[in-house]
Amino acid sequence: MSDMTHLRDARVLPEWVDYNGHMNDGYFAVAFSKATDLLLDEIGLDDAYRKATGFTIYTLGMQIRYLQEVKLGEPISTFCQILEHDSKRIRVWLSMRHTEQGTELATSEQLLLCVDQSGPKAANFPSEIAARLATIGDAHASLPIPEDAGKGIRLKRV
Amino acid sequence: MSDMTHLRDARVLPEWVDYNGHMNDGYFAVAFSKATDLLLDEIGLDDAYRKATGFTIYTLGMQIRYLQEVKLGEPISTFCQILEHDSKRIRVWLSMRHTEQGTELATSEQLLLCVDQSGPKAANFPSEIAARLATIGDAHASLPIPEDAGKGIRLKRV
Repeated sequence: MSDMTHLRDARVLPEWVDYNGHMNDGYFAVAFSKATDLLLDEIGLDDAYRKATGFTIYTLGMQIRYLQEVKLGEPISTFCQILEHDSKRIRVWLSMRHTEQGTELATSEQLLLCVDQSGPKAANFPSEIAARLATIGDAHASLPIPEDAGKGIRLKRV
Repeated sequence: MSDMTHLRDARVLPEWVDYNGHMNDGYFAVAFSKATDLLLDEIGLDDAYRKATGFTIYTLGMQIRYLQEVKLGEPISTFCQILEHDSKRIRVWLSMRHTEQGTELATSEQLLLCVDQSGPKAANFPSEIAARLATIGDAHASLPIPEDAGKGIRLKRV
């Protein structure tokens, strides 16, 4: 069975910490977004490719579930699993874990859209990108689907 | 009929803009989080109250739907509607709009938990906070529920 793809290691930065003395909810999204950029690098949609072609990724939706607090300077590692993809879109699951303890700190589910910035307009993934995406998606196909994937936010379910 | 509660006006800051030339997906969460802080002020859970009592709010979940791009320096206004609340939690809907054009740029749904930081542990809202929350919640009860509220992220629904 395949593993999730390791994307990024980081430490909780001073500007990410809020009045509760822990990483602020909004900055989890910043950290997840930086991790997703490395997934885009993996499928070939890196900075050089964006500049050469005008193709990029816009985020349509992001959900974050906060599981554990994490504090200034603590090491975090983010992993991803592609849940679904089609000709224009990727639905991806990210897991942020404490690098040393392995505890899952938060998860994020994201819906990403390929965009031709000459519009900007939604566009099919260029074939070389689609091929790399399919390779990673195929490797992740045997991973279990996280229990919370696809679920919305409701009071009664928490 | 009541209106949504206006929380915060801001402008898109340079550090919020990414390689696509627009507000980065992660920084929408930062902007929404700053707006939510003002809702907490409205219900009395402000900085002075937090320091005096040790009670605060932790975020359990956040979902963002990205509807329109917004660029450096553009003015944004954020409004909120309380969807549900119980003795410990608030489920709130936020709408970010272009201040001048009125276009909805993004929405966020958040699940917030009252925490006694002496644990930290989940706690009932102190009665004075619960009363102010109920007043706002009652005023919002006549607002229509947003169509996407409570829905998860799925490829086929976009």
